[in-house]
Amino acid sequence: MLLSGGLDSATTLAWALREGYACHCLSVDYGQRHRAELDAAAKIAVGLGASAHKILRLDLAAFGGSALTDASVAVPTDGVKAGIPVTYVPARNTILLSLALGWAEVLGAQSIFVGANAVDYSGYPDCRPVYLQAFEAMANLATKAGVEGRRMEVRAPLVDKSKAEIIRLALELGVNPAGTVTCYQPDASGAACGKCDACRIRKDGFAAARVPDTTRYKP
Amino acid sequence: MLLSGGLDSATTLAWALREGYACHCLSVDYGQRHRAELDAAAKIAVGLGASAHKILRLDLAAFGGSALTDASVAVPTDGVKAGIPVTYVPARNTILLSLALGWAEVLGAQSIFVGANAVDYSGYPDCRPVYLQAFEAMANLATKAGVEGRRMEVRAPLVDKSKAEIIRLALELGVNPAGTVTCYQPDASGAACGKCDACRIRKDGFAAARVPDTTRYKP
Repeated sequence: MLLSGGLDSATTLAWALREGYACHCLSVDYGQRHRAELDAAAKIAVGLGASAHKILRLDLAAFGGSALTDASVAVPTDGVKAGIPVTYVPARNTILLSLALGWAEVLGAQSIFVGANAVDYSGYPDCRPVYLQAFEAMANLATKAGVEGRRMEVRAPLVDKSKAEIIRLALELGVNPAGTVTCYQPDASGAACGKCDACRIRKDGFAAARVPDTTRYKP
Repeated sequence: MLLSGGLDSATTLAWALREGYACHCLSVDYGQRHRAELDAAAKIAVGLGASAHKILRLDLAAFGGSALTDASVAVPTDGVKAGIPVTYVPARNTILLSLALGWAEVLGAQSIFVGANAVDYSGYPDCRPVYLQAFEAMANLATKAGVEGRRMEVRAPLVDKSKAEIIRLALELGVNPAGTVTCYQPDASGAACGKCDACRIRKDGFAAARVPDTTRYKP
C-alpha cells in the first residue's frame, strides 16, 4: 500500500485494514517540498496498525519539472483552475506504483492499494481509473508472479468518492484528519497553508461533509 | 534512454545516436552487486556522445528478493536453466522505465529507449515485447504529455535479435564490448566472472558471431 501521509491514503489504509488485509505501507521521500507528510505517514502506519512501513529515498528533484520537487517553481495559491497544474509530478504515481509492485512481489502480496481519487482532485492523469487499469494490466505482464498466474490487483477504493464522502469515511474508520498532511507546502510541523489546491479541495470537502475542519493551519 | 552499462544498452545507445536521436541516459544505482556497470555506463555515455547522463540512487535492496540485490542469495554459476532465475529483480524494468518516463516527460522527449532483449536472455518477464507494449499503453495514460496528445513510445531495437546479432551490430556501430559490463558479479574493475548466466549468454554470443571475445575476465 502506498501511504503518502495525506487524508486519502490514510483512509485507504484504514479501509483495507477493516477488510482484513495485512498492510505493508510504502512512503517515498522523493524530494517533495511537503516532507512533513512523511512524518505523518509514519505515525499513521503505527496508529492504525499496519504490519510494516518503509520510507524509500528517491531523488525525483534530479528531474525537476514540478512545483512539488523544484524549489524555483511556486505552488499556486490563487484557486483551483481547469487543466493539469504545475504541482503535477511527471510520472509520479507510475514510479510509486512500480516501487510498490516490486515490494509486493517480494512479499507475495496479491493487492496494491493506492489512495487515488478522480473526483475532487487536481486533475492529475495518473489518478484516473483508466490509468490504474492500464497499470494493473502492465503489472501482470511485468512480474514473475504474473507469469506464474498469481495475479496482482491494483485497488483504489476511494477513486470515485467525493472529498466529502472520503472525510465521512475517514471519521467512520477512526482516522484522525488532523494527523494527516494534505497541504503542498506545510510547515515542518505539518500545519497547512490553507491556500494551495490541495488545501482548498480538502477545506471544501469538510464544508460539504458538514463536519468541523480539524486541520491545523499555519498561524 | 536506460543505460545499464551492459552490452545491450550500450548498443541501443549507439543505434539511437546513429538514428539521429539526442540521447539523455539514465542509470540507476539500485543496490546491485554489479555496481561496476555504473562506472562503465558513465564512460559509455561520454564515449559514444550522449547529450546527458544521470545516475539516480534508489535502494531496491530494502525490498530484497533477488540475488542481484540481496548479498545472502548467491548468483548461480552452474549454467543457464529453464524458468526465471533468482537473479530476477522484482519489477526492475517497470521501476527503471517509470523513472525514465518521468525524466522523459520533463525533457519533452518522445521516445524511451531500452536495451531489452527476449531471445538470448535470462527469461525475465519484463524483457518481453508484450510487456513493453503494455508499459507504453500505460505510460500514455499516465502523463500530462499523453493526455495532451504527445505520445511517448517505448523502443527496444534489440528485442528480437540474437546475442550474436547484437555483438555484430555493436562492432558495426563502434561500441567496444570490452568497455561494457554484462557480468552479474564482476570485480570492482568490471572484470567478468565468466560463469554466471549473463556471462555464459554473452560468451556464447561471441562464439556464435565468430568474433574474438574481448571481454576482460577475472584472473
